[in-house]
Amino acid sequence: MTLSTPGPTLGVVGGGQLGRMLGEAAAPLGVELVVTDPTPDPPAAPVVRDALVGAFDDDATFRELAERADVLTYEIELADPDVLERVAEETGTPVHPDPETLRTIQDKLVQKRRLSAAGVPVPEFRQVDSAEDLREACEELGYPAMLKAREGGYDGRGNVPVESPDDAESAFAAIDGPAMVEEMVDFERELAVMGCRGADGQRDTFPVTETIHREEILRESVSPPRTDDDAVLGRAREIVLDVLDAMDGRGVFGVELFETTDGEILLNEIAPRPHNSGHWTIEGCHTSQFEQHVRAVMGMALGTTERRAPTVSANVLGDVEERQPATLVGEESVLSTPRSHLHWYGKHDVYELRKMGHVTLVGGEDGDAESDTDDLLGEVRALRDGLTFRQ
Amino acid sequence: MTLSTPGPTLGVVGGGQLGRMLGEAAAPLGVELVVTDPTPDPPAAPVVRDALVGAFDDDATFRELAERADVLTYEIELADPDVLERVAEETGTPVHPDPETLRTIQDKLVQKRRLSAAGVPVPEFRQVDSAEDLREACEELGYPAMLKAREGGYDGRGNVPVESPDDAESAFAAIDGPAMVEEMVDFERELAVMGCRGADGQRDTFPVTETIHREEILRESVSPPRTDDDAVLGRAREIVLDVLDAMDGRGVFGVELFETTDGEILLNEIAPRPHNSGHWTIEGCHTSQFEQHVRAVMGMALGTTERRAPTVSANVLGDVEERQPATLVGEESVLSTPRSHLHWYGKHDVYELRKMGHVTLVGGEDGDAESDTDDLLGEVRALRDGLTFRQ
Repeated sequence: MTLSTPGPTLGVVGGGQLGRMLGEAAAPLGVELVVTDPTPDPPAAPVVRDALVGAFDDDATFRELAERADVLTYEIELADPDVLERVAEETGTPVHPDPETLRTIQDKLVQKRRLSAAGVPVPEFRQVDSAEDLREACEELGYPAMLKAREGGYDGRGNVPVESPDDAESAFAAIDGPAMVEEMVDFERELAVMGCRGADGQRDTFPVTETIHREEILRESVSPPRTDDDAVLGRAREIVLDVLDAMDGRGVFGVELFETTDGEILLNEIAPRPHNSGHWTIEGCHTSQFEQHVRAVMGMALGTTERRAPTVSANVLGDVEERQPATLVGEESVLSTPRSHLHWYGKHDVYELRKMGHVTLVGGEDGDAESDTDDLLGEVRALRDGLTFRQ
Repeated sequence: MTLSTPGPTLGVVGGGQLGRMLGEAAAPLGVELVVTDPTPDPPAAPVVRDALVGAFDDDATFRELAERADVLTYEIELADPDVLERVAEETGTPVHPDPETLRTIQDKLVQKRRLSAAGVPVPEFRQVDSAEDLREACEELGYPAMLKAREGGYDGRGNVPVESPDDAESAFAAIDGPAMVEEMVDFERELAVMGCRGADGQRDTFPVTETIHREEILRESVSPPRTDDDAVLGRAREIVLDVLDAMDGRGVFGVELFETTDGEILLNEIAPRPHNSGHWTIEGCHTSQFEQHVRAVMGMALGTTERRAPTVSANVLGDVEERQPATLVGEESVLSTPRSHLHWYGKHDVYELRKMGHVTLVGGEDGDAESDTDDLLGEVRALRDGLTFRQ
């Protein structure tokens, strides 16, 4: 990569909040972004060179993106890997991570099979193509179990718990397509690790993060996790390195894990991109997950993943009943609290549980009284809970 | 200020590297930038909503900027205060800092008189309108003295040292306009403090920084300064608070100071905007000078100015003889050194001593062995010196 102007250009499929934060992170490195998104004026628009409008499988806009860019990436799994692959071949613009990796991850069953074959510990799972399959699988896995659509689910959408054999028909009908079922994991806590594959086989992980979900939507991230079991955290890191080895292409991967009540680590899911559970790295690490993704896909050296201080983040979710133009109320206390950082994604409309922004709170340096993450979590929740949307 | 989308908009006169770093800092706060600059595709362009093209006194583009913006500011002193004032009155869009402050600062003689009258210690100075004036003034101030153009000088341009009475004619002819002359200060070191005026009379200062110039161009910034004289640093901060009291309007002010060999602090110059000597705050503080400027001018609460760790920055200056398209060589070592940060300004052309970017190196937390700023300075110089432009 050569730094000249106009800078090296990264073409990004998707212009949501991840694209916006990629734009914020790319500029200091001299990298310009062009994004494509089905929505005009998406969140990334104000901080990128250009925002094209096109569907996530639109050949023409992917081609324009590839022609303007030195490297292609995606910030949403809905990007069509076939179109990406074809456009990359025809224009010579490489795609990272590899479209084959995207294809593997898009299908949760294929993802689990690949990782399991690579020796990564995963919850027990079965392919399910009918209600009958589901009942049979649950005989082995036990009840309750979690039925998952193989494709397209996110933030809990596409997941249906199955409590008993009587649920099988309705659960399978709710998914209405290819599915898999997993044993319900009895977890102590959920963890996430942002892993990264760089050029020349470089791989690294960010510090382990505790994630807190409600209604299967991430609410808060806490780093370091509220545990002093270093062996568990070390095991989580080792597993993520194994995950990285099983993937192709460069980039950041968000890896969600379960820490079971027995102290085991099981892989939950992977995202081939920066992930909500890594937003705390913007202020909490010397290199953010967004800068790291830009470095990785552009072929620059990876930055250090060292944590600067204990750090927590809380998502700001839509709290309105009807979809409507978004106006945030109550940000003054976030802005006036030292070491608290507001991140507004610039979405035009708010609806219930939509991710509209996040608040990050940085603690004192390790060893300080202020570094207790349980206290920080309480504070950031209070700040976040002070935010609301005008009805 | 209300956070909705499209976000509150800040109109910035000037789209250089300061505008670019303002754009990087504004997005998380939900603030969009529109800039105006005489140069098409200026450094800020890839990270702002729009870059208008117009001279720094162009009524029509200032008006368009004012109509699109909620608040106006400027990142260069060449912005015309009369046009800003008129456009602000006609459109109702406020300008921060106040155009009257800009007018005062633009004329170094008026600036010094205002500050001296406010009780701020300044080097001895005299108004100079002829070579004869200059000789008379130097009789009192002693030789050598520094002749300065009252308007338009920067990075040492417009400054001419006067060694003896024989120099008076040629020195005055070199300035060729209204001038002032100052005693040459015998300084131990140069310091800088970024001050900030917020809404409701809020004022604050960032930690004191040591600045190192060569050929009157800033080369490196070191924070904290390489001194253990806390009284001197405390005095510097007090003087900057006095400076802030003498200014009107909100915003960040870059204040350059001399620490004399007697341990006194004298004011050198003020800039009514983020300043090169504060670039280290991007990684070195919880709030950067750019975020602080956005907060201040938009009327948000100021962020904490606390330093996270000892931090040094080094400017990357053009090292070519002829103006030519810029291609940077050697950035790999900056990118692969932990805690080192590259900032590329995206300027199309390079010429001798042009500010093209900077490198920031963050130390360990205070008290660590790694926190010695003299060592950090040596390291960041080595990183910076490894960068060159393709001839």
